[in-house]
Amino acid sequence: MEKITLNFDKTFDFISEDAVNGYAAELQKHNEALHNKMGKGNDFLGWVKLPSSITEAELADFEATAKTLQDKKIEIFVVIGIGGSYLGAKAVLDALSDSFAHLKGSDKPLVLFAGQNIGEDYLHELRELLKNKEYAMAVISKSGTTTEPAIAFRLLKKDIEDKYGKEEAKSRIVAVTDANRGALKSLAVSEGYKTYVIPDDVGGRFSVLTPVGLLAIAVAGFDIRALVQGSVDMENASGPDTAFENNLPAQYAAVRNELYKNGKLIEILVNYNPKLHYVSEWWKQLYGESEGKEGKGIFPASVDFTSDLHSMGQYIQEGERTLFETVISIGTPDQEVSIPTDADNLDGLNFLAGKRVDEVNKMAELGTMLAHVDGGVPNMQIVLPKLNEYSLGQLIYFFEKACGLSGYVLDVNPFDQPGVEAYKKNMFALLEKPGFEEETKAIKARL
Amino acid sequence: MEKITLNFDKTFDFISEDAVNGYAAELQKHNEALHNKMGKGNDFLGWVKLPSSITEAELADFEATAKTLQDKKIEIFVVIGIGGSYLGAKAVLDALSDSFAHLKGSDKPLVLFAGQNIGEDYLHELRELLKNKEYAMAVISKSGTTTEPAIAFRLLKKDIEDKYGKEEAKSRIVAVTDANRGALKSLAVSEGYKTYVIPDDVGGRFSVLTPVGLLAIAVAGFDIRALVQGSVDMENASGPDTAFENNLPAQYAAVRNELYKNGKLIEILVNYNPKLHYVSEWWKQLYGESEGKEGKGIFPASVDFTSDLHSMGQYIQEGERTLFETVISIGTPDQEVSIPTDADNLDGLNFLAGKRVDEVNKMAELGTMLAHVDGGVPNMQIVLPKLNEYSLGQLIYFFEKACGLSGYVLDVNPFDQPGVEAYKKNMFALLEKPGFEEETKAIKARL
Repeated sequence: MEKITLNFDKTFDFISEDAVNGYAAELQKHNEALHNKMGKGNDFLGWVKLPSSITEAELADFEATAKTLQDKKIEIFVVIGIGGSYLGAKAVLDALSDSFAHLKGSDKPLVLFAGQNIGEDYLHELRELLKNKEYAMAVISKSGTTTEPAIAFRLLKKDIEDKYGKEEAKSRIVAVTDANRGALKSLAVSEGYKTYVIPDDVGGRFSVLTPVGLLAIAVAGFDIRALVQGSVDMENASGPDTAFENNLPAQYAAVRNELYKNGKLIEILVNYNPKLHYVSEWWKQLYGESEGKEGKGIFPASVDFTSDLHSMGQYIQEGERTLFETVISIGTPDQEVSIPTDADNLDGLNFLAGKRVDEVNKMAELGTMLAHVDGGVPNMQIVLPKLNEYSLGQLIYFFEKACGLSGYVLDVNPFDQPGVEAYKKNMFALLEKPGFEEETKAIKARL
Repeated sequence: MEKITLNFDKTFDFISEDAVNGYAAELQKHNEALHNKMGKGNDFLGWVKLPSSITEAELADFEATAKTLQDKKIEIFVVIGIGGSYLGAKAVLDALSDSFAHLKGSDKPLVLFAGQNIGEDYLHELRELLKNKEYAMAVISKSGTTTEPAIAFRLLKKDIEDKYGKEEAKSRIVAVTDANRGALKSLAVSEGYKTYVIPDDVGGRFSVLTPVGLLAIAVAGFDIRALVQGSVDMENASGPDTAFENNLPAQYAAVRNELYKNGKLIEILVNYNPKLHYVSEWWKQLYGESEGKEGKGIFPASVDFTSDLHSMGQYIQEGERTLFETVISIGTPDQEVSIPTDADNLDGLNFLAGKRVDEVNKMAELGTMLAHVDGGVPNMQIVLPKLNEYSLGQLIYFFEKACGLSGYVLDVNPFDQPGVEAYKKNMFALLEKPGFEEETKAIKARL
């Protein structure tokens, strides 16, 4: 099975290879700190050895639950979760699914999400849809009290019980939550839901290879074994015994930090396949939440090319020179479409006749990388041989490991997110949540 | 009909009201230059008086074409276009559509896009879908030779002719193109397609109120008259006779340029309704392509809250202090969902029981604005009273007018996009397009 690769020679007009290699010793130290749990945020390093610790029994259990639900002929599997309890599964599912799966129908359930926003129209429209569909759901929350998923679950739990009756509904709800504590754990025990555990030492944005991500991916019919195997192989290929010249996550961490030091303040994750859109969204959470603190951190942005060459392309080519790009490239597509010849050739495309569409896409990619480098935008490239579970598994662990390393280079704790509390405190104060009386008084005085 | 409003008092911890008002005279001059076609890029100012110049006959013609196609019982209307020929229609359609329209079925056609990327899998999957659907299509291209839409149209034209026969296919293809010249114009004439004109003096990113956007919006069954009326009203409310204190686009242009001058290099367009996602994508093209040149320009980014409070929220709260936010807020949702009470209250949500979901969303919005301002991120807020055609029409012209003004303040030509050619030249050289022989030799020497 083919490995993903990383190329960064198109950064050497901007930073030196020596400077990149100069990070080797520091990154070796950080890598050991991650593996030995000696660095900042070391309570949340469960993801480091997670892939290789997933057991055959765990995988078989996901598959069994998936089969149980599929056997109920469900058309839709609703996943209730937000942040890391949403983006990891969404990224993998979109990458592997037919672009028009919603319109085609399938014998496998379609996964939809809820509780990832507080849209009143969204919730109404989802509930209307579910009235006419066969469905089951997973609710994912460590505490069970996160506002968005808690609201969605309160509504959808009632709906599914009304539709199927309380007993049958119990067999259509899976809880992914804390092993011992919290509102959702208590409810799951009292209702007898099938339950999976979110490990204490894996933060939300690192949780896609836990039940948080794997359950939905299995229910949708994708190969979680290949996904995990990809991650295991990247885990093994980036351990403390791996030399810098072979350690892809360490290289990526070095290059992006050196670019940042040299005034490249914005990293744009680029794809040439719209199915990767949510991989970028997942990556933005991973890096934005891990590094954006203490007044520092590379700003994570993303584009879907060639679409966005016709929107953000101008800025990237000629705007402020504070950008660099990391391109996720796919080796070969799954399907084959060739450009037909045309007798009239009014559109002038006959020079492409007989070529595969992807060949044009690849030349757009290469041409763009060269143009952007010429315009002052350093480029890295990550190549996935195929867009499949095994490649995605490698990519997920690659980005996670590089994120931990990169955060240590930046000298922040990459595993906390203290800034996320500020808006929640205000929101609870404005909503007069019990226990926030002082904050309510204070915030109302500001309005 | 209610007007959209702009609030920028949450920027005054960072810039002074006096400094903002200091732009009034300069913006008055720029506004006159836009209306009198005296500024940079004045060959492309057709959008300035476009809304008020749309005639009853034109609107009726769109509606007639929409009805003709709807009467064929088409399920899908494929729009082939990229950049401004994609994002404007997509923004309006997504904003107005049911979040799950794809899964619900409707008597109105669903609009899908093609030619907005070069994804081989995407094209394959779309063509497979269309085999089993009733459909028609529009192809949108000034020249007819833009690579992405030209490839898609070559393939889909053949498919629709194979499915319906050449004669019937002609009545299912609409061409939106140049009035007189170009490959698509020639083809449309020789085939006898229904044709609409892209005006010469309206650039792609300003074209949503031309047939480029209006046709698809009409076919999907939305009210193009209300959309245009919203734009007309904003056109009238932002003319050269409008004082700065009443001129919303001028105010927005002033505030964002003053923030930029004070080190706020990234503008994040924020929404609290996922239906606005593509309004942000359209806005990114509008501003990124207009301002990102000569080594300057605010970098346009976007987030969908509250989803992305759980991904980008940490960075915005505590990362590099180079950001400001512009929030698009929706007055009231279309649907009503209240939070039910729960006897056990395990999730602790009973303090919200009886409240509408949107009330929680609004408090998240207000709480977040306050938290971000406290964290060093200035906030503007644009309020749409309802998410409907009339509000969107106002919003579109608001952003267009502000973009022209803002580009003039920045002292660039906001109506060209010279940087977009660089990658195309490389791509054609790599693909050995006739006429690019020298470039082919040069680029191959670099590989």
